This record gives sequence, C-alpha cells and structure tokens, in this order.
Amino acid sequence: DIEQVMSFTDENNTGVWDHNVPYMFNSTEEAKKIFECLIHPIKPDKFFKELWERKPLLVRRHLENYNDGWFSTAELDKILRQENIHFGVNLDVTTFTDGKRETHNPAGRAHAPVVWDFYQNGCSVRMLNPQTYSRNVWKLLSVLQEYFGCCCGANVYLTPPGTQGFAPHYDDIEAFILQLEGKKYWRLYSPRSDAETLPRLSSGNFSEDDIGEPILDVVLEPGDLLYFPRGVIHQGKALEDTHSLHITVSCYQKNTWGDLLEKLMPRALQIAIEEDVDFRKGLPRDYMDVMGIANSDIDNPQRKVFLRKIQQLMTKLISHAPVDSACDQLSKHYIHDSLPPVLSEAEKSCSVHGDGERWEKSKKCVVGTAEMEPDTQIKIIRKGVLRLLAEDDDVRIYHSLDNTRIYHGSDPQYIEISAEAGPAVEYLIHSYPEYVAIDSLPLGTLDEKIAIASVLYDHGLLLTSEPLDSIDDDESSGEPDNC
Amino acid sequence: DIEQVMSFTDENNTGVWDHNVPYMFNSTEEAKKIFECLIHPIKPDKFFKELWERKPLLVRRHLENYNDGWFSTAELDKILRQENIHFGVNLDVTTFTDGKRETHNPAGRAHAPVVWDFYQNGCSVRMLNPQTYSRNVWKLLSVLQEYFGCCCGANVYLTPPGTQGFAPHYDDIEAFILQLEGKKYWRLYSPRSDAETLPRLSSGNFSEDDIGEPILDVVLEPGDLLYFPRGVIHQGKALEDTHSLHITVSCYQKNTWGDLLEKLMPRALQIAIEEDVDFRKGLPRDYMDVMGIANSDIDNPQRKVFLRKIQQLMTKLISHAPVDSACDQLSKHYIHDSLPPVLSEAEKSCSVHGDGERWEKSKKCVVGTAEMEPDTQIKIIRKGVLRLLAEDDDVRIYHSLDNTRIYHGSDPQYIEISAEAGPAVEYLIHSYPEYVAIDSLPLGTLDEKIAIASVLYDHGLLLTSEPLDSIDDDESSGEPDNC
Amino acid sequence: DIEQVMSFTDENNTGVWDHNVPYMFNSTEEAKKIFECLIHPIKPDKFFKELWERKPLLVRRHLENYNDGWFSTAELDKILRQENIHFGVNLDVTTFTDGKRETHNPAGRAHAPVVWDFYQNGCSVRMLNPQTYSRNVWKLLSVLQEYFGCCCGANVYLTPPGTQGFAPHYDDIEAFILQLEGKKYWRLYSPRSDAETLPRLSSGNFSEDDIGEPILDVVLEPGDLLYFPRGVIHQGKALEDTHSLHITVSCYQKNTWGDLLEKLMPRALQIAIEEDVDFRKGLPRDYMDVMGIANSDIDNPQRKVFLRKIQQLMTKLISHAPVDSACDQLSKHYIHDSLPPVLSEAEKSCSVHGDGERWEKSKKCVVGTAEMEPDTQIKIIRKGVLRLLAEDDDVRIYHSLDNTRIYHGSDPQYIEISAEAGPAVEYLIHSYPEYVAIDSLPLGTLDEKIAIASVLYDHGLLLTSEPLDSIDDDESSGEPDNC
Amino acid sequence: DIEQVMSFTDENNTGVWDHNVPYMFNSTEEAKKIFECLIHPIKPDKFFKELWERKPLLVRRHLENYNDGWFSTAELDKILRQENIHFGVNLDVTTFTDGKRETHNPAGRAHAPVVWDFYQNGCSVRMLNPQTYSRNVWKLLSVLQEYFGCCCGANVYLTPPGTQGFAPHYDDIEAFILQLEGKKYWRLYSPRSDAETLPRLSSGNFSEDDIGEPILDVVLEPGDLLYFPRGVIHQGKALEDTHSLHITVSCYQKNTWGDLLEKLMPRALQIAIEEDVDFRKGLPRDYMDVMGIANSDIDNPQRKVFLRKIQQLMTKLISHAPVDSACDQLSKHYIHDSLPPVLSEAEKSCSVHGDGERWEKSKKCVVGTAEMEPDTQIKIIRKGVLRLLAEDDDVRIYHSLDNTRIYHGSDPQYIEISAEAGPAVEYLIHSYPEYVAIDSLPLGTLDEKIAIASVLYDHGLLLTSEPLDSIDDDESSGEPDNC
Repeated sequence: DIEQVMSFTDENNTGVWDHNVPYMFNSTEEAKKIFECLIHPIKPDKFFKELWERKPLLVRRHLENYNDGWFSTAELDKILRQENIHFGVNLDVTTFTDGKRETHNPAGRAHAPVVWDFYQNGCSVRMLNPQTYSRNVWKLLSVLQEYFGCCCGANVYLTPPGTQGFAPHYDDIEAFILQLEGKKYWRLYSPRSDAETLPRLSSGNFSEDDIGEPILDVVLEPGDLLYFPRGVIHQGKALEDTHSLHITVSCYQKNTWGDLLEKLMPRALQIAIEEDVDFRKGLPRDYMDVMGIANSDIDNPQRKVFLRKIQQLMTKLISHAPVDSACDQLSKHYIHDSLPPVLSEAEKSCSVHGDGERWEKSKKCVVGTAEMEPDTQIKIIRKGVLRLLAEDDDVRIYHSLDNTRIYHGSDPQYIEISAEAGPAVEYLIHSYPEYVAIDSLPLGTLDEKIAIASVLYDHGLLLTSEPLDSIDDDESSGEPDNC
Repeated sequence: DIEQVMSFTDENNTGVWDHNVPYMFNSTEEAKKIFECLIHPIKPDKFFKELWERKPLLVRRHLENYNDGWFSTAELDKILRQENIHFGVNLDVTTFTDGKRETHNPAGRAHAPVVWDFYQNGCSVRMLNPQTYSRNVWKLLSVLQEYFGCCCGANVYLTPPGTQGFAPHYDDIEAFILQLEGKKYWRLYSPRSDAETLPRLSSGNFSEDDIGEPILDVVLEPGDLLYFPRGVIHQGKALEDTHSLHITVSCYQKNTWGDLLEKLMPRALQIAIEEDVDFRKGLPRDYMDVMGIANSDIDNPQRKVFLRKIQQLMTKLISHAPVDSACDQLSKHYIHDSLPPVLSEAEKSCSVHGDGERWEKSKKCVVGTAEMEPDTQIKIIRKGVLRLLAEDDDVRIYHSLDNTRIYHGSDPQYIEISAEAGPAVEYLIHSYPEYVAIDSLPLGTLDEKIAIASVLYDHGLLLTSEPLDSIDDDESSGEPDNC
Repeated sequence: DIEQVMSFTDENNTGVWDHNVPYMFNSTEEAKKIFECLIHPIKPDKFFKELWERKPLLVRRHLENYNDGWFSTAELDKILRQENIHFGVNLDVTTFTDGKRETHNPAGRAHAPVVWDFYQNGCSVRMLNPQTYSRNVWKLLSVLQEYFGCCCGANVYLTPPGTQGFAPHYDDIEAFILQLEGKKYWRLYSPRSDAETLPRLSSGNFSEDDIGEPILDVVLEPGDLLYFPRGVIHQGKALEDTHSLHITVSCYQKNTWGDLLEKLMPRALQIAIEEDVDFRKGLPRDYMDVMGIANSDIDNPQRKVFLRKIQQLMTKLISHAPVDSACDQLSKHYIHDSLPPVLSEAEKSCSVHGDGERWEKSKKCVVGTAEMEPDTQIKIIRKGVLRLLAEDDDVRIYHSLDNTRIYHGSDPQYIEISAEAGPAVEYLIHSYPEYVAIDSLPLGTLDEKIAIASVLYDHGLLLTSEPLDSIDDDESSGEPDNC
Repeated sequence: DIEQVMSFTDENNTGVWDHNVPYMFNSTEEAKKIFECLIHPIKPDKFFKELWERKPLLVRRHLENYNDGWFSTAELDKILRQENIHFGVNLDVTTFTDGKRETHNPAGRAHAPVVWDFYQNGCSVRMLNPQTYSRNVWKLLSVLQEYFGCCCGANVYLTPPGTQGFAPHYDDIEAFILQLEGKKYWRLYSPRSDAETLPRLSSGNFSEDDIGEPILDVVLEPGDLLYFPRGVIHQGKALEDTHSLHITVSCYQKNTWGDLLEKLMPRALQIAIEEDVDFRKGLPRDYMDVMGIANSDIDNPQRKVFLRKIQQLMTKLISHAPVDSACDQLSKHYIHDSLPPVLSEAEKSCSVHGDGERWEKSKKCVVGTAEMEPDTQIKIIRKGVLRLLAEDDDVRIYHSLDNTRIYHGSDPQYIEISAEAGPAVEYLIHSYPEYVAIDSLPLGTLDEKIAIASVLYDHGLLLTSEPLDSIDDDESSGEPDNC
C-alpha cells in the first residue's frame, strides 16, 4: 500500500556495518552514520520528513548478513550460560496459540537448558534488555540514543518454527525491527482511531476482530528492516520451516511535546502567581452561581466574562513559561535513562581510564603521576553524556558516565560546581567536537582552569588530545616501598 | 491618608443588628443584608469597586453597641468553663514585649482560672475558632460564607490593658476587624512590594525597621470596623487604661484565579494530550542542543521555532480547558470547608428536623409518619449548602449539612444520585428561592419525583412550604406496644 | 442448666438505683456500689469467684423499673434530633431474616424520621456509643471502668416487635445486658471449643447448625440482667407483641495476661540482651544442621543441648522482665481509652472547674483570684484518672481528664513533671481518699510544694477540701477597666 | 599478656594454600580445611574452646607468602580500572591525623588515578566488598560462611607508609586479619566493661584517653594472622617505611542467642495465647493499684501473687516455643545473606551449568537434550546452599544459588514444592555428601521422583555423578533449521 507503508528493495547494497567502536572524534557524526546504516538506503532527511511518526517503512535488502553482528541465537545461548538471567526480569517465555496469549515464566534464574526446553516446546523467548549483556547491542543503543536525543531500548525475540509468541497489539514506542535469523511473517494494521494514533500507552492484546485489514503483509528475511510508529498494530509468526530471531530497537517513549508541557505548565503557573498579581486576585464572589457543570448550558454574560478572564490568564501564562528550565529537567531524565558510552581503547588511553597513577607491584608504590598542563588539549568525551543545570541554587553537571548497563541501576549522578565555573563548562560543550587548551577556558585564574578541568577529567568527562605524560616515571628512586 | 485608606465617620447611624436567625426565604438576600450591616454606611457596590483587595477601610461609628451580640469577654469566660478548650488547639496565650513575640501555651485543657491567670500576667488571649462554641459567631460566618462564596473564619483577640500580643505582620486573608470592647490602637502599613501584594502566604514577624511609615494610625472603639486586604501589615495595642476585645472575620484564603488555574491546568493538559495528536508528537531530535539554560543566550533559529511551537500548544490548551469542571472542584472544597447552616425553629419544622416519625413513649411505638405528596411545595434549604457534580462517572450532590462546627471535623459528605435525577436537582437549584411542587420536577414518573425529593428531604436538603402532615396520628389504635 | 448458667430470681428487691452523681469521697467505693447494684442480689465476691469469665448469670428481678434511668427509646429519639448522629459511625440499622444478616445504613446523618422509617420496616437499631450522648450512660461507664480497671463500652439495641437484628455469634468482651423496655427472647450456647473459650476476637455470624443446643433459653423483662463471658454464643429476638430495648455494657477487651506479656516480653528480652552476655554469645556454628523443621524428627544429642540452652535462657528472661514498667504501659493505654469522669457540682466547686478567676463583666476585669496555701487540703479528684510513669527519661502524669466522650477523640494527655516532684504525686496517690495538706507533701521547699499542687490543680487533677478563697474580691478598686 | 591474648610463632610451617576451587565432594570438609589453614597451626577444637568470643589470637608465621593469593594491591588497581567502583558505596578514602578521623570520599565512580591521588596524599583506602570483584575473596568467604553457618564479609585496607586511617574503635563482628603486604603496627585493648563485651553494635571513634593500656602491641608482617572477638578495641598504623595491605574477614554479626530469641519469643507468645486459655484470662481487676513504677517499693502480698503469676506464665511459655521454626527463620536470612557458591568446572559439567540443551548454530536448532533417568545419581550441590521451610502453608526451598555477589543484590529466592515432595528433599539433605539414585527418593511414583529431581536440577541445586547423557545428538537429522 503505497500510501500507508513505504517499501524498498535495496538492490545494490553491498555494505555491512562496522561493529568496532571508533575513536569518536564527533559522536554526533558517528551516531548519524549508524542511523544511516540502519535505514539504508533511505536518507534520514526523507525518513524524518515522510515516515517518522507517520507510516511504516519496509526495506528488503536481499543481503542476509546486512544486520549481522548485532545479536545471534548463539550469543543468547552464551549469555544464558554466563550471566545471571532471571525469568520475568530479563527474559520471558510466551505462547500465542488459538488466540490465547500466555506467559510461562517459572521463578528464579533462567538456566540455558531450561530455556531451551521451553523453546523446544514451542515457546517464544523474549530477552528484555540485551544491551546489559551484549556489547554490540549496548554499542548500537548508546550511539542511537545520542542520535535520537532520548533513551533507546531493545528486545530480542526468538520464535520456534511455525509459532507465534504474541497477540496483535500496538506499543508506545517507535520500533525498528532488524531481522537477524530465519524468517518471520509480519502483518501491520493502521491505528484504529485518532485517539490511538501516536498513543502514550501500549495496548492490551487484540483479537483478529478488533483490528481490520492489514496494511502490510510481508515475510522478513535476514538483513531486512521494518520500521513502524507507536500505535501501529502488528503481529509476527515464524515460518513453518524455520525459527526467527529479530531485535527490536525502540525509542521515543514519553518524549513528546505533552511530556515537556507536563514539566513546564505547573512551574509556569507557579512563576506567574509569584510574579503577576493578577493571578493572586480573588475570584468573583458569585462565580459559583454561574459556573460549574450544572450551569454550563446557561447563556449568561457573567459566564462569558469569567471564561474570557481565564483565557486572558492562560495567554499570560505563556510569557511566564520557563521553557529552558523544563527542557533541562527532561534532559536530566534523559541522562539518567541513558546507557553509558562504549569507549574505544584509544579513547580510554586519553581519559581517566588510561594509565595515570597506578600501583607498581615491584616497587610497592604508586607510579605514573600525570597532571594537566595549561596547554593540555581537552574536549568533552561525548556530546551527549552530560548536561549543565541550575538546580536548587546549585550548578550541577548531570552525566551518564557512571550509569550501569541496567536501566536505572544507579541513582542520577551529578557533579556540583561553582557558578563561576559554569561558563567554562558551557565553553567546552559548545566547542565540541574541537579540542581546546585548558588555558583558553573562560575563567579567572589558571588554577581555576586546571581545577575545573581536573574535576571533569577525574569523573571521566574529558578526553585529552594525547595521553597525559607521567611526571615521575623516570625520577622514581627504586627504593623498596618508599617511592 | 485619603489615597491609601478610606475612613468614615458614621454620624447618623442608630441601628443595631438583629442577631436572631430569620426564616431565610432567600439566603442570598439575607447574606447581603448582613454584609451591608457589617460595612455600613458603605455600600457593597462601592466597597467592591474601590476597596476590596485594594485598600483599608475604617468606619468609626460612635455607637458603642453597634457590634454588640457577636461575642464578649463574658461569653469567652463561659466557653472556657463549659467547653473542652485546649491550649494550642483552640486558644493561644501570647505576648509581644520589647520586640519579642512569645507563645506561652501549656499542654492540655485551658481551664478558665488558668487562662485568666495568664491574662492577669499580661498575656493576650486568642481564641482560634469561636464559631465552634459561639452560636452567634457561627451564625455570622455561616451567612457571610454564602455571601463571599468562600470559607469564612474568625479569631477573637482579648488584650490586657497597655499590652500588645503580636508582632507586626501581614496575613493571607481579607480581614474585617469588629471592635467589641475597650480600645485598641492600630497601625497599618502598605505591602512592602508588588510580590507582597495580595500574598498567598502570611508573613513572619516583622520589626519596626522592616515596615516603614504607617498609612493608618487610629484608636478603634466599640462599634468600629476596620477592613484591610491580605498583605497589609498591621499591629494593634490595647490602650493603657482599658482592655480590648475584637473579632477578626476572615475570608478569601486561597480563593484566587491562581488557585482555580492550579486545578484547571493539569486537567486541561491531560485532555489536550488525549484529544489532540499534536500534543502526542515527538519532540525534535536535537532540541537538547539548542534548548536549556546553557543555550539560553544563544541566538538560534531552531530555538525560535521551538519556542513558537510551545506558544502554539499553550494557546491551544485554552480550548481544552475544562473550566466548569475545575470550578466544581473548587466548589466541592468550599462545601467541605463550610460551616453548616444555622436553622431557625420555623425552618426546622419544615424539614427533616421537624416532627415527622417519632417515638411515642406512652404508646411504645413510632407515630407521626409523614409522607411527601405530589403537590408538596419544596425548595433547597439554603442556596449555598449543596453542589451538583459529575465525578468518577457518578452524579453526586456534595452538601455541608452534616459538616461540624469544627473545620473539617467530618469527611466530605455527598449523596449519589442517578444521572436521570440530575436535571430535577438542577431545577430545584435554579428555582431557588421559590418553592416548586414535587410534581413539577422534570422527571419521568411521579415515583421518581417523590423518590428524589425524599432522598433530598431525608438528608436535610429540602424545606417544605409547610410542615408535612402526619398520616397516622388519628388512626393509631392505642394497643399497647403494637402500633 | 445449673452447671452452665447461674440463674437468680430476686424476690425481695425493692431498690432502684440512684442516678445522681454523688460527691465521690472515695471513687473506689462508689464504683463498687454501682457494680453491686448492677448484679444485685449476687455479691461481687461470689460473682468473681464463680461466674466471671466462667459462666453466664441470669437475674430476673420482677421489678420492671430496676434498670430505669440508664437509657430509653425516648432518649434515643431525643438524641437523634439534637445530635449529629451518623449512620455507620454512631448507629446501625440491621436485619436478620431467614438466616441472613444485613446492614442497611445509608450515608450521612441519621435524622430521626429516617431512622424511625427503618424501624417501622423491621430494622433493629444499634447505637454504638450512647455514652457520648447520654449523660447517664457516661456516668455508668465512667464509674464501672474504675471498678474493672479497664475501658468499658456500651451498645444500645432497639428491636421491633417479632424481629431479630443479629445472627448468632460470640464477642470478645464480657457482656452485661440490662433489659430496659419490652421483652426479648435470649438463647445462649457454650463456646464450641477450648480455642473459642475466652477468645481474643469476636466471631463471624453462625448458622443454627454451627452452635448446638442452648444452655439458656429465657425471656428477659425490664429490670432483668444477663451476664455472659466472651466466647459465649448468643442470639436474641423481640417477642411478637412488643419491641425490646436493652443496653449491653462491655469490658475486658484485650485486658488479659497475654496482652500484658505482649508488652512485657520484647522489653524483657531487650534488657536481658543488654545486661547478660549469655544472650549476646554466638549460636553454635553447626546449629542449622540439627535444628529446623527438616531435622525435628531426628534424635540427636546436639538438638537436646540446643533446646536445653534455649530453656535456660528463657528461664533467665524472667529475672529481667520489667513487670512494673509493662503494667504502666498497659495503664497508659487504659488512661487514654477511658471516659473522662462525671463531676458533681460540689466537686466542680472544689476544683479548677470552680469559680476561681473569672471575668467580671461590669468591672471589665478579672476578679476572684484564688491561691493555694500551705494548709490547703488536697486530694486526687478520682482514684483512677491519672497514672505516674517514667518514660523517655521523663516523669509523666498521664490523665483522662481532657479525654472526650468519643473514644480516642483526643491524643493521650500528659503533664511532664520533675523527677523530684514524683514522690509528692505518689504520696497523693497513696493517700487517696484522704485529703492532705500541701505542706505535708514530701518535697524540699514550700514553693516546690505549691508549684506541684498548682500544676495538678490547673489541669483539674485535684480536689480541695473547700473551694479556694478568693483574695481580691474585697480589695478590688472598682476603677473602670483597670482592676 | 598470656592471659588476654594467645600468641603463636608458627616455626615449621611450610605450606601455602591452594586457591583452586576443588570439586567439593563434601563442602563441610572443604570448609573445615580452609579454616584450618586460616588459623594454622592452632587446631579448630582448641580455637573454639579457648579463644572464640573470648580473646585475641596472634599467629606470626615468618612465611611471608602464606596469605598470598587472597588479594593484592595490584588486584585492587585492576579492579579500579575494570569495575564500576563508587566512592562511599564500594570504597572509602580516610585519614586519622592528630586524633581526628575524616572521610574524603568525593561523589561518583572511583577511577584508579583518582584513588591513587588520595593514596599519595596519605589517605587509607578501604574496599568494602572485595568479594564482589575478587574471585578469590568470593571463594574464601563462600566457603567460610558454610563453616560458620553465618554470613561472612570482608574489607580490604590499604594504608600508605607511616599513616593511620582509622581511630581506635571496636566492631560488632568476629575479625580475622590476614596481613597481605607490608607491615602494620597493631594495638589491641580489652572491652571497657561487661556491657561492651560481645557488643551488638560497633562503637564510635575513641580517643587514647578512653581505652586504657593495650593488651597486645605487635607488628604484623605478611603471612601473619590476628583474630579478635567483637568488642575488642583496636587500632593499626602502617610502619614509616612501608605501606600495609590486609584483609579483614568478618562473621557472626547478629548471630547470637539473643537474635534467635527475638525471632522465637513473639511467636512463642502468640502460640501460647492460642493454645492455653491461661494466657487469655483477664488481668486482676485491681492490678493497677499495686503494680507500676509508683508501687514498686511497696511490700504487698497482691504484688507477690501477681509477679508469681507472671513467672508461671513465662515458664509455661517455654513449652510453647517453636524453636525449630525460629531456627528456620534465621536460616532463611542466612541463605539470603549468603554469597552464591563458587563452582569448579567439573561441578558445572555435572549440573544445570553443564552442556545440556544448547543452540547449535550450524544446524540452527537446539541439540543436546538430556534427561534424568531412574538410576541417575544425584546429590545437593553444596551442603549449605538450601533450606527447607514450612511457611505460609507452603513448603519452600530457599536457596542461595541465584544470589548475587553484591549483598542482598536479589530478593530471597525460593522454590515452592508440594508437601509430598518434602521428605524427598529431606532425604537428599541428609544423604549429603553421598549420591543417591533418583529411584531411591521416598516418593510414590517414578514420575514424582523425576519431577522433583528435575525441578531441583533446573534451579541448579543438584549435582549428578556424571554429566547427563544427551539423547538426541546422534539422531539429529541435520536438516537445515528443522531439528
């Protein structure tokens, strides 16, 4: 259906993705490249103009190893053996048979033989947070989250031949389905109403009677991509002669104008009440006689005056709305929701993860003391790992570097800095991706410049253009245990 | 100061108030009369146009018994002896000496001799809720609340000769001070800033240095009235040769446009998000790069687009705002905050408080069964005691009849009725103060009409034009214990 | 059944009770008298030896006005009209028809005509806390609580002719049923098992099949008394030709050795652990191998050693048990649960309720200052209204004087005194019912003696042998408003 | 001091520990061996008879690599680089200088260079849970916990030359200090009072004035051991010319008779009240007159009767005490507190961690199905990893297999089994360490035997004597994706 779905056959594609972590000179650029690979051969501009939040996209690549490397059933087997995977927490085993959707999770750890037993008996296996265990999924999502400016998640679905694990339903996220192994027969259906278009919450399970005619009806093969917006009803079934494995990358859950307004409006009203006496004036003595549901059908000039007043005040509210502050609040949540970045070895060596001070076993002392110099070239380690906020009368840098690969596995992490150091951090943010010398930071004294750079470096927020030089390696005396 | 305070000398006044509870044919009218007496000789129209929420009003009546009857020190003495008055809960003993404000409340019940001991030692006595114990204060407030369409409260202040009990401060309510006994020297000061004009919260204690020059400087005598808006700083001291007793009637606490908007805005946003997909669309991918405090000084076209979008959505919000529903929510709080009405004997006899069924001791049975007839003439017992609301898919009549004279002494009381009966209740509300025949209620069958009238009558919400006739008084057989 | 119930016919009784509040020289004695009247002609010694917590007692008095004065249906009617009685809170309307027990409470206030309507339609009316509204019930319970040393309650039951309002069941209180009006047919049944003898909780509703043969089968007439212990199953039905009104006085709810031990044991253990290192020694390394349900059938010497050790420690616990302190904790609850005392006019005049300082309207000042003198004779106002406790490093007098007639209508009330003043309070407690001179209190200085006496007097805890003399009545100058 | 400390010089010791995980045929035996090595050359019998919970033990080994392998500063360096170590959560940096104890933790992750910077500046480094990151520490503690029958913990302390990181204090655990690197000067002091002997809680920081003369004064060298009971005050300082690294193994925190009684007594009382009517009988009416602090000095026969009654009831309590059940509750906590076991490769291959069903990448299907047979020989995988409990009317096996290496990182894990299967589990527990054939389990049918064995196996609780045979490896058809 040309109008409701965009379908592509990617005739000439020969590329496969590079799964190595690059030294990300510019993480924005790298993120864009990854996304371009994801939707290739569609161009992002076209995608966001014509498809995003509008209609599904199908890309048939006829290149079965195009999506290779992100995940595999073999990796799932390995994870089950090596990690503490729990039923119901990290993994579900489900069936959808004769119109009935069931979950079969026992309690406790999901040992590999137990999971395979369920699989052999026709259960679909859904891994809920592969990014916690798979380095490549982590990598993919940590880069895409920077591209989308919002938290990205993933589920992996393994389906035995000839079975279906889930009932038709719609989700509350934008979905990118990457077919990895085997074949799956997908059917997509339009949202059933305006109210279910771009919905805030996922649906329950539908029956065939609820959902009408499909707008797409296709067999996905390895290498293929299927995108659809939140609200699009979908169901998939593995073909009779093959299992199916795909990964669904998700984003834009609760990342809408409405969500921002929910942060913004209460604060806007609070400010308006503080700043504008009109909001603090008393209601008309007799408003209860003309307002209220029981009076809503009555044509009354006082009602009109009252409603006009409300309209005036609501219009006035706009000028009091602290939009930047509300955006910062949303950003703070984004930072907390984020995966930590995956760093390359090169990046590690130019940050706090590099050698620096270390315990020298033979000398029984610490060696390798390295210090920042005025001409040390520095930059933020990734565009999207930090956010500068004014909060509770403090200036804080919220960052995602100490986040765990488990969603909200740690509390929001922030560094409190002095108000004076704020512009230096802003300068670093706006200079990205370029390196700047510490000496060029907009701060009074060199000591202050070194100090803020050191704090950021110590928390892992900075990259230096080269590994810091050690100042003591040569001088160390070699005296036993008395460096 | 002609500009900041309006002062009157009421040369010709000869009237005193009538403290009897009338049969309130029209409670709105009665309420208006009471308020006119309160501010006499100022007319309400002038008052609300020129003074209300704007500037203080002083009326010197030279008629020392003008305010008589509302309260007296003798009544306070009687209440202390008869009621379970507790320090800190119902009554405070305080001093303001050498610029220091202190509260001297011991624990437990405030027995009269103990309170008078404090008084003899120079303590001011503040009774916090005289309406709970004084029938006349109850009467005054229960009528004024209907006039103002909001909860009214009162404090009584008794001050020993030559002392002051409180530091200069401002309150969060509109204050009407009625001087009852003795003389008090008052000084009023303008709000110190726009932000303290019509403030939402009361101030702490000020020192003389904080408050500037008084705008009013006057000795109140019995019969006088002093009104001032919230935010006006004030202090009062009893003259050296006399004690002082006054009652402060208060209203309009948290009854502003801002308070209504606090109910309205979250619901408006929720509705907008449900009804309008524009509120459910995703934020721009890169909004975090241009928005936020760290970017607020940057001139950027994307920022402008973003801000314009917010402005559009906030403007759209107006059309989704459920103003009537928010007014109903505020009204519901008003009903819960209200004092129950004071009923005259005549009113009692024409309501559920009248004879009706009763236990006949000599016959050892119930007599006096009375029933409503199609031609029974009924009306709501007071304009302001009930509110019809749609809530949680039910139609409810919230009412204040079972409220106690202690603030929030009972939970909000409501009657659930069928949606069909709603218009009959609306009809009764809009017919007020006229009586209507039960038969004329806009409902399908006579049974339904009798049923809704009976429910309202049984909860005390209805007045009949005459006491209901008893149907069994004549027929009763007189057989012992078997009526 | 001579063995299971004790029945009496009180042939010669001619007395009726005196419902006036006496000046209680000795509240213990007065309480005893009231209880003797209650169970007359049984003597208390016999009652507590043979019946209390053992078996029912029936006294048929053939003196229909014997119980008069405590309550009547006419008083119920009056209360419904004058007080704010709420369905479900203060009053229930119920039926038990064809083996089915139902409650018919509507929401809100129970207006008299509405209640009588239910009654006319065959509903029983149960008033839950008549002591709050009936001065005589208050009097009865406030005295009996002192007799029993525990909280006493009451329910009033009005039953229409020929109906039953409740299913057979047992309660968790000792019950004294005083038949007031009409006749009721009662059947009593033995507890069904040891476990249901003196139970801690009331039962649900039983059917006839559950309860066996009655041990008592009697028609109660006005003036009669029926007592039965908690656990005795009972049901009552009004005779066909008459309504029935009775009051059930209840006591000993959660006032058992077990309740005391629940306060005592945790504290005993805590003290033992603090004081005795044996309780702080480690468990045997391998106790888990021999102990636990899975090992309970195994005959093992280590188990025996372990069990013997537990036995030793539990025996040791006895010597650490702070029995007095636990009794005080229970007493504290009793004080909080209590009704305040009913004072006679004579008692009021000799306490803080007497004249003392008062507002003299004509002089516009306080007169009647009265002060305690060294030779003022004082005593505690009632034996049971206070309790001296050591708590949180403070010495506190908990008292019931500021309690309300509504159960737990106020927080526990206490006065904090100095540790030095403790013996003076003990002296007063142990001197009861005799008066002692303030000067004889065991305290260092006269000032301290006057101080503690004043604090107790001001809180209403003391009676003086005569009203305090006023010291200023003659001297007062008569100057207007400047006493 | 020969009486207060036992000191040994281990002249002939030549052994070093074997840090490999053995195939633990009998985990009880293995645990004993590890403990024997820990305290070598003292024998456990002597240790527990003369020293445990009594006095310190010092073993000077003159064998500097005796404790090697458990931990090293080099391993700390590695952990800091590889793991997400957070200041305040996993690691503290502290100083004790001029009598002042300070903690210098910044917020966030403890990157190696930052930690070494603190160290260079004289800070001690304490790692709070090395078992989470060090496999050898995990191994040591997981075995010792089985030996002690209680949770074991560990802290690692790295101290720069010439510094002290902590003030003198005592702890609430039995401490085994293993000196690993460098030298530390230790001083030990006796508990200051009986109340501080075997204390329940750790102390605050002491000054020299608080603690008297040391009972031990020694320099620990690598290979040495120092044990002391909870309550022994201690302080240690690195020698001027060397850093110091030691690990403190701790156990017996809240594992005392008192802790067991805290579980036991409330339940014993509850049972006694249910089972014995004596506990449900009412208190004497007048007990408040003779009991309570205010009466405690009065010699009164009623008091004696009352106290004797309490004594009787407390003695009776003993016979109602559910000791096994309380032990099980304590055991349940132990299981939750435990580290999971460290399994050898051999053990893994004979349990659910072995091959079993697995994904065969080339065949694109699951292969290796293995099933238990009647003659399969099974045993519990470790003596101490599970506990059979009756709880909430269910039979549950609590186990520690799914615990994380972070304390309480997962909820308590249990398997619910049928009451019938209970004896089979008991049989397995009591058969340990011997293998038994599934067929020999005391259960009705073979299916039931296989079923309970499978459930235990699937949760990782069973070892088989040999790896299970795969039943499908030969038969598998090799057809692509359709096994």
